Amino acid sequence: MSELNIIRELKKLNFNNLYDKDFLLTWEKSIDELKAIMLIAEFLKAEHKNGKSLRVFESGIGISIFRDNSTRTRFSYISALNMLGLSVADMDEVKSQVAHGETERETANMLSFLAEVIGIRDDMYLGEGDKYQRNFSAAVRQGFNEGVLHQCPSIINLQSDIDHPTQAMADLMKLKDYFGSLENLRGKKLAMTWAYSPSYGKPLSVPQGIIGLMSRFGMDVTLAYPEGYDLLPDVIQLAKNNAKQNGGAFNVVNNMDEAFRNADVVYPKSWAPFKVMERRTTLLKAKDKAGLDQLEKECLANNAKFKNWECNANNMALTKNAAALYMHCLPADISGVSCNAGEVSAEVFEKYRRDTYHEASFKPFIIAAMIFCARFANPAAVIENIMKCNKDRKCS
Amino acid sequence: MSELNIIRELKKLNFNNLYDKDFLLTWEKSIDELKAIMLIAEFLKAEHKNGKSLRVFESGIGISIFRDNSTRTRFSYISALNMLGLSVADMDEVKSQVAHGETERETANMLSFLAEVIGIRDDMYLGEGDKYQRNFSAAVRQGFNEGVLHQCPSIINLQSDIDHPTQAMADLMKLKDYFGSLENLRGKKLAMTWAYSPSYGKPLSVPQGIIGLMSRFGMDVTLAYPEGYDLLPDVIQLAKNNAKQNGGAFNVVNNMDEAFRNADVVYPKSWAPFKVMERRTTLLKAKDKAGLDQLEKECLANNAKFKNWECNANNMALTKNAAALYMHCLPADISGVSCNAGEVSAEVFEKYRRDTYHEASFKPFIIAAMIFCARFANPAAVIENIMKCNKDRKCS
Amino acid sequence: MSELNIIRELKKLNFNNLYDKDFLLTWEKSIDELKAIMLIAEFLKAEHKNGKSLRVFESGIGISIFRDNSTRTRFSYISALNMLGLSVADMDEVKSQVAHGETERETANMLSFLAEVIGIRDDMYLGEGDKYQRNFSAAVRQGFNEGVLHQCPSIINLQSDIDHPTQAMADLMKLKDYFGSLENLRGKKLAMTWAYSPSYGKPLSVPQGIIGLMSRFGMDVTLAYPEGYDLLPDVIQLAKNNAKQNGGAFNVVNNMDEAFRNADVVYPKSWAPFKVMERRTTLLKAKDKAGLDQLEKECLANNAKFKNWECNANNMALTKNAAALYMHCLPADISGVSCNAGEVSAEVFEKYRRDTYHEASFKPFIIAAMIFCARFANPAAVIENIMKCNKDRKCS
Repeated sequence: MSELNIIRELKKLNFNNLYDKDFLLTWEKSIDELKAIMLIAEFLKAEHKNGKSLRVFESGIGISIFRDNSTRTRFSYISALNMLGLSVADMDEVKSQVAHGETERETANMLSFLAEVIGIRDDMYLGEGDKYQRNFSAAVRQGFNEGVLHQCPSIINLQSDIDHPTQAMADLMKLKDYFGSLENLRGKKLAMTWAYSPSYGKPLSVPQGIIGLMSRFGMDVTLAYPEGYDLLPDVIQLAKNNAKQNGGAFNVVNNMDEAFRNADVVYPKSWAPFKVMERRTTLLKAKDKAGLDQLEKECLANNAKFKNWECNANNMALTKNAAALYMHCLPADISGVSCNAGEVSAEVFEKYRRDTYHEASFKPFIIAAMIFCARFANPAAVIENIMKCNKDRKCS
Repeated sequence: MSELNIIRELKKLNFNNLYDKDFLLTWEKSIDELKAIMLIAEFLKAEHKNGKSLRVFESGIGISIFRDNSTRTRFSYISALNMLGLSVADMDEVKSQVAHGETERETANMLSFLAEVIGIRDDMYLGEGDKYQRNFSAAVRQGFNEGVLHQCPSIINLQSDIDHPTQAMADLMKLKDYFGSLENLRGKKLAMTWAYSPSYGKPLSVPQGIIGLMSRFGMDVTLAYPEGYDLLPDVIQLAKNNAKQNGGAFNVVNNMDEAFRNADVVYPKSWAPFKVMERRTTLLKAKDKAGLDQLEKECLANNAKFKNWECNANNMALTKNAAALYMHCLPADISGVSCNAGEVSAEVFEKYRRDTYHEASFKPFIIAAMIFCARFANPAAVIENIMKCNKDRKCS
Repeated sequence: MSELNIIRELKKLNFNNLYDKDFLLTWEKSIDELKAIMLIAEFLKAEHKNGKSLRVFESGIGISIFRDNSTRTRFSYISALNMLGLSVADMDEVKSQVAHGETERETANMLSFLAEVIGIRDDMYLGEGDKYQRNFSAAVRQGFNEGVLHQCPSIINLQSDIDHPTQAMADLMKLKDYFGSLENLRGKKLAMTWAYSPSYGKPLSVPQGIIGLMSRFGMDVTLAYPEGYDLLPDVIQLAKNNAKQNGGAFNVVNNMDEAFRNADVVYPKSWAPFKVMERRTTLLKAKDKAGLDQLEKECLANNAKFKNWECNANNMALTKNAAALYMHCLPADISGVSCNAGEVSAEVFEKYRRDTYHEASFKPFIIAAMIFCARFANPAAVIENIMKCNKDRKCS
């Protein structure tokens, strides 16, 4: 879309309510709001490609809190901050400690005197990640209301136990780009399927994020997993309701081939069963090392029963014209490459390698667009200003 | 104070000598110099609140050397650098190693080719922290004089074994704000008292910094601690002299209630006895692990005798109109919240929570003002220039 | 050289081929290209000394990958980035892990969406460091060609198993400065000699970088080491060819005094024998802990036979007028200062201390100049633009 068209489209949307807010779950945002963020991300990506400066902050800090290791998301966040003129400040001390109540509220405020935005990844414990983000948000909101903070920073969910909105939104942009428009997604079948991985305890937030988001754009979403690998019941219910309300479909099956059959898009990805994650959280809180080791052993043994849940030439042949788009949040467990047996065969991955990289390339811009909408009361005016200034990123 | 008044006041003060210098101890600076730093911090805080850009550096590095863990001070320092346009560079390698002589001099210079400022926290070992900062300063001064460095960076003490000037100055700003003016502090009683904490080995720099600074502004400072919990004798002598010269008072008592009686301000805070810190330093140098464990055991046992040194509704009732201002450098050990029994009751802390957060909110601006005065020959002119440019921090 | 002269000289050189390229080995660059980088580094250093802003990027990221510990080079790199307006992003996760194939390619691309430059230090394993850098480069080049990346970042070798070009180029700038011009280096004798150190396993890249570079500027290079402490045979052959083609000389001797005799410059520096490094790499790959310990023991015992390879007043007396320039990449092992017996006597080191610091001071500017040439199609025009803008680094 041309940049003038982007602005024209933007002006049709009602997204004022993104201003001065957090971005925690896609399903807390309206369709207009999600569309606006994608349009702005498109604008930022196009301008970046053209070598233009997108610096809209003279100074300001983006705090980075990663309570789980991350390379890709961390760099996407750093890139988004840098693009807009913000500096990253890592709060790595919280990685392993679980703070509560006053300690948490106090820390949140002490970090935030100059903060514009706070990116948080906390996806390890069911029932904890989203809660931590909301507590953090409430703490700084209170600090602002009490006159301690000059401005209330916005929280960006960089992966919680419930949703991974920066990933899901980047994935949606890839789909929009691949099929030409959001409208073209209507009726397209997306198979979000479990896949085998030799590792253990992968978060549920990616599949939950995908079914929670794509079901709002009229897609025919099929979720597939081996018996026992359930997701959070609330999110399943949400996907069902979304499908009803938006003219799509949502089905759950326990068979990979069935999900792949006639699919336009496949997203095979490992995760841990919801009930295992619950037990794990309980054991972790009890610091029951032996119990955790036992649980891991059980799980890996159970995973191993489903080694045939691999995306490969055979099941790709079942998809629409044997040519579904393969998606992954990366890194994928590639059979014979990054592990002996994994989520996807080397052949399929290599065929779609460029697509998966391209999918990931939307993430820095989606994050930047979320920040943009949270921090500027009138994003369209700021965009027009960027175009008018037309400043190169490099001196010439 | 209005911003024009700030500039008018600033022009009455003689503070040229802050330029191209370090900030290590408040008592090495004149009253005028301290006042100027506070005025500039006020200006920066007001402009930040108004959304203005305070970027006065196009580029430049602020080195961060934390030889002890820190979250609050580290973020205040990062925030100060960001506000002014400097980038932080962490020198974390020195955390655990004690380097000497040529190695130290060489490292100091190798880091500093682009440095404007170097923030150092080194508060763990009596007789070491301040020395390390002075050695670092001498090293870069020599490097500059020998033509190795293009400019001589300024050292900012972010907490040493002797003083914690960025904390004490932020506290003084809080007092100035709370009582309306520095003049209003004359005759006000401040109780800097020891308080019980279940932890061990807290630095002496906060109480030392408070008595060393507040005694210069005509306050009636009472230091209280259980027998044996002495501070550095030199700082006690200094506080006495300050009081004499500035028309205030300085008393030491061994009774918390006595200190609280009729106080306008109370600052209950745990610290380790000076002699314990000395023994600890000796044991650490000798790498005597058993000795250190034994010392910790002894100390905690000794601390436990003074659990009644808690700030609570009972002793707060003894203060002026039962309404003294409660201060703390945070995080406080709050009884029943962050520990079983601690420095302050939950009730008192909650009543003054907003005040303690507000107290902390001055710190990024005090640090920025210290940097400002150390790096600009004519800070008033730069401030006037900031006001003239009147640039927003966010693009519009 | 005056800044106008620098521009005039620059315009005589053919260095277009540096644009959009990596800088991995000095011997992959033409003499004109090396001269251009030094001229630009001189310009940047002079402007920095004059307090001028060298900010040529509005935004952009410089990734920092250190697979071996580093303080000096890391800060030089950070300083170079800051000077030009780029922000550093540390990729520390790769420190200990050796990734291969798809994983490596994928990571390289995932980090690089906003990257202008990627500085890599990987000097621990013979046959690995340079390879890692080339793989990284190929990965991002492919990503760019496939439309995943908007721009292809340039790799800067911050020390590999083969070369340490930012060090060697900084050293060459020191020599140019010390002797007045590159022309004056013709015929000057440089003794690159092994020296005793109590530590083990130091990389070969500094001596290799020095003989590979200085032999191209007509110097009379003598390499000296105890029998068995060979460097990579390819680099030895390269130095021989360089000497032949550029009217200099290159000799290898096994005697420190012989190397020092009549030398204009001495560079005494410890390294591990090439064959030991090969065995070490093999043992590391096999995770043979016992073998590694045995190798270290053997090596230290062997090193100890050559304690007399120390640079001191006695052998300095053999040099040209007993006044050769002493060089070192720092930190040096100084006998009686940083170790009992080491590479250089305290007396000699102190005499040349300021020179070694000054030598190091070129490094941030050499790195910045490498980035400058890799990222700007017309560096001379950008330099003219910097001069025209004549912007101060600090607001006034």
